[in-house]
Amino acid sequence: MKIDNSPPRGTRDLLPDTVAMRDHMLVTISEIYHQFGYQRIETPALEDLRRLTDGQGGENEKLIFQVLRRGLPARIEADTEVRELADLGLRFDLTVPLTRFYGNNHSQLPHPFRSFQFGPVWRAERPQKGRYRQFYHCDIDIIGEASVLAEVELIEATTAALAAVGLAGTTVRLSDRRYLSALAESVGLPEENWQAFFIGLDKLDKIGWEGVRRELADYRSLQPSAIDKALTRVRDLAELAPSKVIDGVADAVPALAEQVLADLATTTRALTDIAATTDLTWEFDPTLVRGMGYYTGQIFEIAHPDFPSSLAGGGRYDKLIGRSLGKDVPACGFSIGFERIVDLLDRTLRPDAVAVLYNSDVPLTRVLATARGLRSDGQKVAIIGRSGKFGAQLARLESWGFTAVVHLRADNDSEVLPPVRPLGGPSPNPG
Amino acid sequence: MKIDNSPPRGTRDLLPDTVAMRDHMLVTISEIYHQFGYQRIETPALEDLRRLTDGQGGENEKLIFQVLRRGLPARIEADTEVRELADLGLRFDLTVPLTRFYGNNHSQLPHPFRSFQFGPVWRAERPQKGRYRQFYHCDIDIIGEASVLAEVELIEATTAALAAVGLAGTTVRLSDRRYLSALAESVGLPEENWQAFFIGLDKLDKIGWEGVRRELADYRSLQPSAIDKALTRVRDLAELAPSKVIDGVADAVPALAEQVLADLATTTRALTDIAATTDLTWEFDPTLVRGMGYYTGQIFEIAHPDFPSSLAGGGRYDKLIGRSLGKDVPACGFSIGFERIVDLLDRTLRPDAVAVLYNSDVPLTRVLATARGLRSDGQKVAIIGRSGKFGAQLARLESWGFTAVVHLRADNDSEVLPPVRPLGGPSPNPG
Repeated sequence: MKIDNSPPRGTRDLLPDTVAMRDHMLVTISEIYHQFGYQRIETPALEDLRRLTDGQGGENEKLIFQVLRRGLPARIEADTEVRELADLGLRFDLTVPLTRFYGNNHSQLPHPFRSFQFGPVWRAERPQKGRYRQFYHCDIDIIGEASVLAEVELIEATTAALAAVGLAGTTVRLSDRRYLSALAESVGLPEENWQAFFIGLDKLDKIGWEGVRRELADYRSLQPSAIDKALTRVRDLAELAPSKVIDGVADAVPALAEQVLADLATTTRALTDIAATTDLTWEFDPTLVRGMGYYTGQIFEIAHPDFPSSLAGGGRYDKLIGRSLGKDVPACGFSIGFERIVDLLDRTLRPDAVAVLYNSDVPLTRVLATARGLRSDGQKVAIIGRSGKFGAQLARLESWGFTAVVHLRADNDSEVLPPVRPLGGPSPNPG
Repeated sequence: MKIDNSPPRGTRDLLPDTVAMRDHMLVTISEIYHQFGYQRIETPALEDLRRLTDGQGGENEKLIFQVLRRGLPARIEADTEVRELADLGLRFDLTVPLTRFYGNNHSQLPHPFRSFQFGPVWRAERPQKGRYRQFYHCDIDIIGEASVLAEVELIEATTAALAAVGLAGTTVRLSDRRYLSALAESVGLPEENWQAFFIGLDKLDKIGWEGVRRELADYRSLQPSAIDKALTRVRDLAELAPSKVIDGVADAVPALAEQVLADLATTTRALTDIAATTDLTWEFDPTLVRGMGYYTGQIFEIAHPDFPSSLAGGGRYDKLIGRSLGKDVPACGFSIGFERIVDLLDRTLRPDAVAVLYNSDVPLTRVLATARGLRSDGQKVAIIGRSGKFGAQLARLESWGFTAVVHLRADNDSEVLPPVRPLGGPSPNPG
């Protein structure tokens, strides 16, 4: 009988070596975030379905795993709507739960509150290589800080975390939703077209300038002369040297609010400062959009030369907390694409471990005492029965990641502990 | 407008102090388990509903959060059965996923395989104090070790892990399902009544000896004379001194297989050895049953004087892996009741953290540089804007867990860094 033991479609089992590597990366990132004053919180995997489908989640709202109400009758009445059958859903990100969490617990939290979240999210996407239906998000957010201190700190902390796991040489790409809105307005696009303009521009990486122009003019029916004007300005801005960015943006979008320019000046000055003593590099990217609808200010991503898409992304969302809390609280977040950096860093991490190999005629108490003695010296020790050919078993032990072996036999009973022999060197005598 | 920001019924938000304490406990337990050669694995939260409802999960199978199939029509046809609407479920424990995981990945795993799992499980139980619908399991299992080495090692490792988190003074209670079966047989109970006998005996803690007798005789209609005989023997065994256990069990259940007595002798001798040099204590508990139907050999729990129910439980289940793999593989596991020990140890764990308090006229770059300097000294540092009365803000900082403060003002601009002042001592001058 052949039994299918695969996990559900689009999900996967994580084997010991993979988990060890992921845990190591998580610990490394956590240490950095703790140094920056972020505190880890945890929310349940399930949220009310109404909250998950309130229109802020964009395309993700179509990908929710919905949970059946408990206590339904065994047979469903005719014409029942599917949406009446489910009341909960698995979260598709950690931002929706964070806004609910803040609404629920803000009176017990510091102000500003620095949140660190790491946990699984679920999306019923069509399974494909590198895309999973359960995967981890790793987010930091500052709630309650109105100034761009939040933006700069989030960027500094995330860059430091990525450098700590071995991803140095990253580039921060910075823009501002307020600049994009003002640009759209300045070329004569009506406000109801701005979102379409953003979505079209966001596809630049995939379809190029001419593709974006066609998408906006033909498919989205935006006014062609306005599109051409907007895209020309964006293109010109993309070529500015860092020192010319503020003046360039001011010239390209004359109606831009002073605050937006002042914020951009503060952020770029602070990033330039940080770049002087760390490996952070930054650029203003006038084509950057970010997918979610809720951003209200500066937005940013981190790119790495070895990876086509961004490793992390975030921005300011000053109007989202208000939907849960009933009053607006400024907020800004940055999310590391944990699965992406795991893929990028794919490498084996194996701690030294000793195998205590015992022949079946050795008393169990001696086997246990041997292992205990090695552990008290700080070693990782696994007890394994002797079986098959000795050389073949040693080879297996090595392939499982053991770095040393102790072989207990009845005839070395008088020794307190036979020698711990390193594996992977010249083959010892068979026993 | 009052918005309800509670998490779904029966679930909860975990706040920073709680998460810090839980993380600390998890790290401590993980270190011990790694020393014993256990390797952490991870399986998805979702499993096929058929696998979760195959009859091995007992009462838990009735408590599954079921996930709606994707792509259902908006309206359900008449007479559709509820079970046709769902295809996945949230796992209710980590043992069912482990057996599937082993079936799926055994060729890539060491033999024996020492598994460590920590993760959330979900049960749609009626919410009540101390019971949650999402909670964490913390399991170790040895797959592929037929001898009671597995039992002894699991007990030693779990006791060590509990001692490491501050739960010394625990007592291991040991029994064997094979002894219970042989006892039931020896008093004349037919095999189809054994499970009922176990379930009744398992209630001893709650309903007492007379309650068990009535439950078995009246409610379950077992033969009264057989019940009386069985309960008398169990009572007598409960009073044996540790050194008399093997002989006592042999006398009480003469038909017991030699292997069961030999295993009991080996385990008790090994536990006595370990007890001589650690704080482990043990007792044979002839009334111990454990709820799950799948146990096939020795079973065990860990009790602590401060807690009414057990802190951990486990046993041998040699026939469960076979249901996934197609052939039996011996297996044995031990599960820590993580939420119970969190409740038992409820205490605050706050690392030292410095607040960098800045007046609004201090340049952002100076604020950031100050924080960076303190971090490079290894400190945890959060940047916070100066607001309200100074003394009141210091009191808030202290209540949020900060242990020191640096106050940046425009008039101390000339200093590289004003003094780091400890919080919680005599109040410094207002600034």
